[in-house]
Amino acid sequence: MTQNIYDTPAFFEGYSKMGRSVQGLAGAPEWPALQAMLPPMSGVRVVDLGCGYGWFSRWAQEQGAAEVLGLDVSQKMLARAKEMTSTPTISYAIADLEHLDIPMGVFDLAYSSLAFHYIVDLKGLFARIHRALVPGGHLVFSIEHPIFMAPRNPGWLMDDEGRKSWPVDGYQQEGPRVTHWLADGVIKQHRTLGTLLNLLIQAGFTLSHVEEWGPSEADLRTRPELAEEQERPMMLLVSAHR
Amino acid sequence: MTQNIYDTPAFFEGYSKMGRSVQGLAGAPEWPALQAMLPPMSGVRVVDLGCGYGWFSRWAQEQGAAEVLGLDVSQKMLARAKEMTSTPTISYAIADLEHLDIPMGVFDLAYSSLAFHYIVDLKGLFARIHRALVPGGHLVFSIEHPIFMAPRNPGWLMDDEGRKSWPVDGYQQEGPRVTHWLADGVIKQHRTLGTLLNLLIQAGFTLSHVEEWGPSEADLRTRPELAEEQERPMMLLVSAHR
Repeated sequence: MTQNIYDTPAFFEGYSKMGRSVQGLAGAPEWPALQAMLPPMSGVRVVDLGCGYGWFSRWAQEQGAAEVLGLDVSQKMLARAKEMTSTPTISYAIADLEHLDIPMGVFDLAYSSLAFHYIVDLKGLFARIHRALVPGGHLVFSIEHPIFMAPRNPGWLMDDEGRKSWPVDGYQQEGPRVTHWLADGVIKQHRTLGTLLNLLIQAGFTLSHVEEWGPSEADLRTRPELAEEQERPMMLLVSAHR
Repeated sequence: MTQNIYDTPAFFEGYSKMGRSVQGLAGAPEWPALQAMLPPMSGVRVVDLGCGYGWFSRWAQEQGAAEVLGLDVSQKMLARAKEMTSTPTISYAIADLEHLDIPMGVFDLAYSSLAFHYIVDLKGLFARIHRALVPGGHLVFSIEHPIFMAPRNPGWLMDDEGRKSWPVDGYQQEGPRVTHWLADGVIKQHRTLGTLLNLLIQAGFTLSHVEEWGPSEADLRTRPELAEEQERPMMLLVSAHR
């Protein structure tokens, strides 16, 4: 069973106040880049893996998706998602991505935002997603970047001139990383970027686009606090197809 | 024209003393990983891009390659390569990878070791390599890892307990990086890993394997000085096919 940190009160409390929780997709600076990697949404059947409050599921439906299935391990988040959804073409269900059980060959798009770095058996998950897609179907996801996840004690370093750098260590040691983000003891699974991409290839996917998100000039004008994300790769966005 | 740092006396002098120059492939710790990514060599026609002393070209010939063309920008290195080669199925030629001019559709394998990070027009080079390969042909190469290349002032950081980390900055700023490795003013071209892979995909390649080389336990027993390479990704090995 995946650690369900989202249902611990401190984490849920903190997470629910984040820009991406309150404002939805518009609060996630990587969304425009991720959106650009999506196939045309009209008529597609979508599974949203780790759907949280359902922001993407509802967006997909508004863009003309035929059917959307939002899956999440968090009862609290699904409850909130259902409150915000009034369309019968979107359904939500509790699911542990570690042991995903979804029908074979029925989805045109599997989407996931910042959930895969919690998964231990990513090989198994990619195999199940591959089987769940129709031939030619797409997998588009974001994940914390391995360079962001690798360090034993992650944190910025500031030089005498106030320039930031992101010290990397432990990169080649794959396995759990325990961090204290919003709550104590959040467990993430570090893999090298190579391992992640090879797992996709071995599952039968063809890679279409790999993006290490960083802020654009326009992002920096509206959110100057993102400047440090020019120094390191923080999020990885991937699209692949069956 | 690519900067031909290899023919400057200080660089050539330093480079010629390195393990990978003296011992050839056995002196390159990443070689076993790169070798494992190669197709069966029997009967293949090979182009070795940035062949240096020709160690790989000769290895390919010994493995049964039908024909090997070794290309390099350095007169000095090619002269040394020719001295060490006595087989008519290997030919060497001066070539600037920045403006590669090779026949179309004739090679089964394009190989390159640690040369592509000097190339400004990598998009053009990948397009020319793609055209030079037969359908199903392979491109296998190593390149300095973007995380290794990105920093403005690259160098290890040591904590109070003697643990090393590799501070990363400037990752999202693609473009030249001037370093002082063996000689002053060596110019390399930093690109994010995402950009590198997308250039391959856009050129028509399908990615087969992406490896961020790190030392194995066996490597560390014979070469304990490689231990720091567990902390960061230093080299990137990629195989792709047409």
